[in-house]
Amino acid sequence: MPKLLILSSDADEYRKLIEQANLPGLDEITSHPTNDCDIVLGETKLIQDALPHLPNLKWIQTTSAGVEHLLDPALRRDYTLTNARGVFGELMSEYVFGYLLLHEKKMFERYRAQQSIKWDRFESGVLHGKTIGLLGVGSIGAHLAGTAKHFGMTVHGFTRESETSTQVDRYYHPASTAVATLPPLSANDGLIAFATGLDYLVCVLPRTEGTNKIVDTNLLDALPSRSVFINVGRGNAVDESALVNALTKGKIAAAVLDVTEQEPLPEDHPFWTTPNLLLTFHTSAISYPESITELFIENYRLHIEGKPLKYQVDFERGY
Amino acid sequence: MPKLLILSSDADEYRKLIEQANLPGLDEITSHPTNDCDIVLGETKLIQDALPHLPNLKWIQTTSAGVEHLLDPALRRDYTLTNARGVFGELMSEYVFGYLLLHEKKMFERYRAQQSIKWDRFESGVLHGKTIGLLGVGSIGAHLAGTAKHFGMTVHGFTRESETSTQVDRYYHPASTAVATLPPLSANDGLIAFATGLDYLVCVLPRTEGTNKIVDTNLLDALPSRSVFINVGRGNAVDESALVNALTKGKIAAAVLDVTEQEPLPEDHPFWTTPNLLLTFHTSAISYPESITELFIENYRLHIEGKPLKYQVDFERGY
Repeated sequence: MPKLLILSSDADEYRKLIEQANLPGLDEITSHPTNDCDIVLGETKLIQDALPHLPNLKWIQTTSAGVEHLLDPALRRDYTLTNARGVFGELMSEYVFGYLLLHEKKMFERYRAQQSIKWDRFESGVLHGKTIGLLGVGSIGAHLAGTAKHFGMTVHGFTRESETSTQVDRYYHPASTAVATLPPLSANDGLIAFATGLDYLVCVLPRTEGTNKIVDTNLLDALPSRSVFINVGRGNAVDESALVNALTKGKIAAAVLDVTEQEPLPEDHPFWTTPNLLLTFHTSAISYPESITELFIENYRLHIEGKPLKYQVDFERGY
Repeated sequence: MPKLLILSSDADEYRKLIEQANLPGLDEITSHPTNDCDIVLGETKLIQDALPHLPNLKWIQTTSAGVEHLLDPALRRDYTLTNARGVFGELMSEYVFGYLLLHEKKMFERYRAQQSIKWDRFESGVLHGKTIGLLGVGSIGAHLAGTAKHFGMTVHGFTRESETSTQVDRYYHPASTAVATLPPLSANDGLIAFATGLDYLVCVLPRTEGTNKIVDTNLLDALPSRSVFINVGRGNAVDESALVNALTKGKIAAAVLDVTEQEPLPEDHPFWTTPNLLLTFHTSAISYPESITELFIENYRLHIEGKPLKYQVDFERGY
């Protein structure tokens, strides 16, 4: 009989939701790794520590999209890994377009005018007609593309190979698209062509070897000075000193970072006080147990029927 | 031959755009009211002053949606009045959902955490699943409804009679819908039923007799304490001391006012410092000459062909 291990700060809520679902065959749910646990649901950091203590492990469902803690080549890969996808797109859209609108509508500046008792009608910017570039077009990128089209924007997408979203107006790819070789995404000119002329650049890339410092001086130099950079992917994608430099010199207009290389960000990191840089402390898409549980239940039914699971992670590719 | 009078602070831009269109029969464009001007394009305040000096007036196209300056019963009504509609919906959506996202994503609070060098992951709210109430569902309200549906929200609409937008999940009406009598919108219980349970209340009503102080203590009391009120219609719709009271006592969570009864707002008005009240100084939908000119050109062609114009204002109804 399957035995489920839940490793999450929301374990009680997950247990309650899963018990309510009365899943066939699932009689045992625990929060402590034991020899007979074969299914794990939870946060990747907690699961990483438990990996050596699960001899009967068959399947791990993570509550996050990012799974880098489980991808270290030193760790076992003798199980099926599925991550949370399709549940963060809406949250990410709210976050990304919220911050783009904060910028265009000059909300901080208007608040300062109010604090100064000043009826100051400086003009707002608009999203309509602007061009957004999506660095990475998976399920989150596809959702962002849909919201961008709703707001009348042009959407450019940069991906290694896939062109799954039909709402992207134009795709850009690395010069070499041979998947077997997995070249760093930045090792090509396609990226510079992609960045040229963007009003907004949004990074939704996962942490992999190939995404390290893809947002570097070259890419930032290619962006117009009016442009806004948002990172909701992973901190490794950004050359942090290059970004501080670009913002300090006004090479780009603003940046919003939900993720950074080190989290929490060290107190002496320049990001805290870099001009026109906003930090949001990795809150853009906090996992909601209800939606993750729906996904788990769907995959559990597939698992006990011996069918392929949804959102399987390719350990080599890294997502 | 038609002679066009342009009365706008953007007159030069309008003249250039209209000249480029080479409209049939339109040989004369002026910025000074003369006896032979029969068409006027411009801002209602400026047009109001020119009204007595235009004996041959046939048609006025305003650059705004609101036309209250031309509705005073003491003013002439012997011409066709068309206002700007269908061009502000996108701008209003950007403004309204931008401010709702500012509230849900706690952007001010996160910025204060950053200024205190504090990695503080307090939780964000979401639009998804929330209920928005539209006080007025004309072309702007219909556009807001579409954006709300994109974000997975439930949409309630309060209108005198029309149910034109199919994206409104539920309509509410005044108890008496007899158009001839034009009862004040608030003189009924439908409004209270509409307000009950809303997460967000957005007013897009024009200034008419019937909309005066529709957002009063009764309506504010019916809103949940978590709710946010946004006014992008006209300032007359709000009982201002009732709103100050509701915010000060925490009866509602926040308010965003683009419009106020007096504009500019007097320096000693309590709105400047009312807690959780944001002012944006009537900037939510500044007219863009390009879109207004498109509308003017379309109506000009209808006008010279003797056909009914688009977006005619009913002087009695007030919109």
